[in-house]
Amino acid sequence: MERLNTYLAEFEEFLTKDSYNPVFKNLYDPVEYTMSNAGKRLRPLVVMMACEAFSGETKMALPAAKAIELFHNFTLLHDDVMDDAPLRRGKDSVFKKFGLNAAILSGDVMLIKSYDCIKEYDSPLYKQIMEVINENAIKVCEGQQLDIDFETREDVDIQEYLKMIELKTAVLFAGALKIGALIGRASQDQAQHLYEFGKNIGIAFQMQDDVLDTYGNNPKVGKQKGGDILQCKKTYLYLKTLDLLEGDEKVAFKELYDSNVEDKVAKVIQIFDRVVIKEYSEQVKQAYLDLAWSHLAASGLSGKFENEFKNFGNFLLDRQY
Amino acid sequence: MERLNTYLAEFEEFLTKDSYNPVFKNLYDPVEYTMSNAGKRLRPLVVMMACEAFSGETKMALPAAKAIELFHNFTLLHDDVMDDAPLRRGKDSVFKKFGLNAAILSGDVMLIKSYDCIKEYDSPLYKQIMEVINENAIKVCEGQQLDIDFETREDVDIQEYLKMIELKTAVLFAGALKIGALIGRASQDQAQHLYEFGKNIGIAFQMQDDVLDTYGNNPKVGKQKGGDILQCKKTYLYLKTLDLLEGDEKVAFKELYDSNVEDKVAKVIQIFDRVVIKEYSEQVKQAYLDLAWSHLAASGLSGKFENEFKNFGNFLLDRQY
Repeated sequence: MERLNTYLAEFEEFLTKDSYNPVFKNLYDPVEYTMSNAGKRLRPLVVMMACEAFSGETKMALPAAKAIELFHNFTLLHDDVMDDAPLRRGKDSVFKKFGLNAAILSGDVMLIKSYDCIKEYDSPLYKQIMEVINENAIKVCEGQQLDIDFETREDVDIQEYLKMIELKTAVLFAGALKIGALIGRASQDQAQHLYEFGKNIGIAFQMQDDVLDTYGNNPKVGKQKGGDILQCKKTYLYLKTLDLLEGDEKVAFKELYDSNVEDKVAKVIQIFDRVVIKEYSEQVKQAYLDLAWSHLAASGLSGKFENEFKNFGNFLLDRQY
Repeated sequence: MERLNTYLAEFEEFLTKDSYNPVFKNLYDPVEYTMSNAGKRLRPLVVMMACEAFSGETKMALPAAKAIELFHNFTLLHDDVMDDAPLRRGKDSVFKKFGLNAAILSGDVMLIKSYDCIKEYDSPLYKQIMEVINENAIKVCEGQQLDIDFETREDVDIQEYLKMIELKTAVLFAGALKIGALIGRASQDQAQHLYEFGKNIGIAFQMQDDVLDTYGNNPKVGKQKGGDILQCKKTYLYLKTLDLLEGDEKVAFKELYDSNVEDKVAKVIQIFDRVVIKEYSEQVKQAYLDLAWSHLAASGLSGKFENEFKNFGNFLLDRQY
């Protein structure tokens, strides 16, 4: 995935061109703090990769790549308030470091600046990109709302859970690919196939994230093994296990999962193992992956770039931690 | 201002066409609650009025009018969190009624839906409208930040204060006029004159608001007379009085204003009266009004509509409470 490093360097260089009016220091310091505490930059990188795949160029994808990264980070600022999260990427969250008002207002301005980046593109491409952002931005809010709702709902089913992760995490990744393709002058049809590729990879990725939270063998710094279990999160693993159990066993499992007993993680994993939940999760993940590959094949990319995307997908899905 | 009532009826009718997916009830209920608890709808009305002034039509202005109203209400949801405000237009604020997370997330989706309304317009008008929204949306955030900064800053000067009210309140009103004009196919030059008209009316309006907070003879329900004084707000009246006083008097006034003494409002007004602050405020307000009228005259509107806008401006600025 050497190509990714080249993209990353180009993207980081592009970001350094920003400068903010010091009069509004308290508004933009949290923005700079967030944008410089880089995550994996996956979304901007796929904007660039999709653009290059269709046009041979990356430069014209940069403003949209930045827009997507700003948008993603805006959601993190507000999510951290809603989750009361003190940490983000191993550092203080904006909420913790700069306070509630900064997390809200600087988040707002990041969202607006994200839209503002797109002005570099001429009509009608401008409108095409904005519509992809808007449509998926609304979905991201809807997904976040479902996630909040699920915390207090007792009747969440697996289809709803899959819809929630699609909305909350997969569609923005999908939108990034579609926008890159559109900038690279792909047809609407090709761009839509890349969108579906991204959406299905995104869902598979989140499925894997759920599995690794419980079964990962090298938890990332700051991420507690079994964190989802401890927080009683209604993940695929939990919902499918509920589905597989019956009668008293089902009731007992639900009680255990909602409880705070000692050894809760080990006890839950014991039940997970008994219903071979890892196998089920693997199958569902694989089904989404197969869908992703079929859309990739239909996107009309050259063999070289189809391969690049396949490698990229496998790179994302091969983590063991 | 009979025309305004016709616009208002048309706008309210347009708003009723909205419907939201009940799956996301918790996301959209606060949006409906906010949008149905109507304020004066000044901003959408001027979008319609500016559009009609140049094109003879209002219908095509409706999606943009809704966008501006959604945007304005998004700022209120987030401002109420930042100000810890339990009331909005005589009812519970969203923050109070639905909680912090709803105020943040439903506010976010209102901002995005606001942008989404614009998709009804074809390129390149679409891009023109979006750029006006974006540019001014950024200014609104910057103005809100300055307002927050001023609470703890001791060295605010009058020019900074005027800039803050321009950014926080005047530019959105100005942008509404510009967008209406652009939809009505005004030239960029004409639309910009209407923008400047709106900006200057907006600043004059806020100046008057400051005066009425202290000198209004019929305070609105839920608005305490002298509220700005009690909250030690750095208004024009306060900053200009500080400027006019010297030596010990200045120090004593500052101490009084920052204090919590009994009869604070009466004592502050006594000093305001002594330096004839009402006259100064009136002069500054008049200077902005004169600027507004000159831009209105330069906007190339027909005599009939120039008159309508003049009446509207006077209607806004003639309140005694």
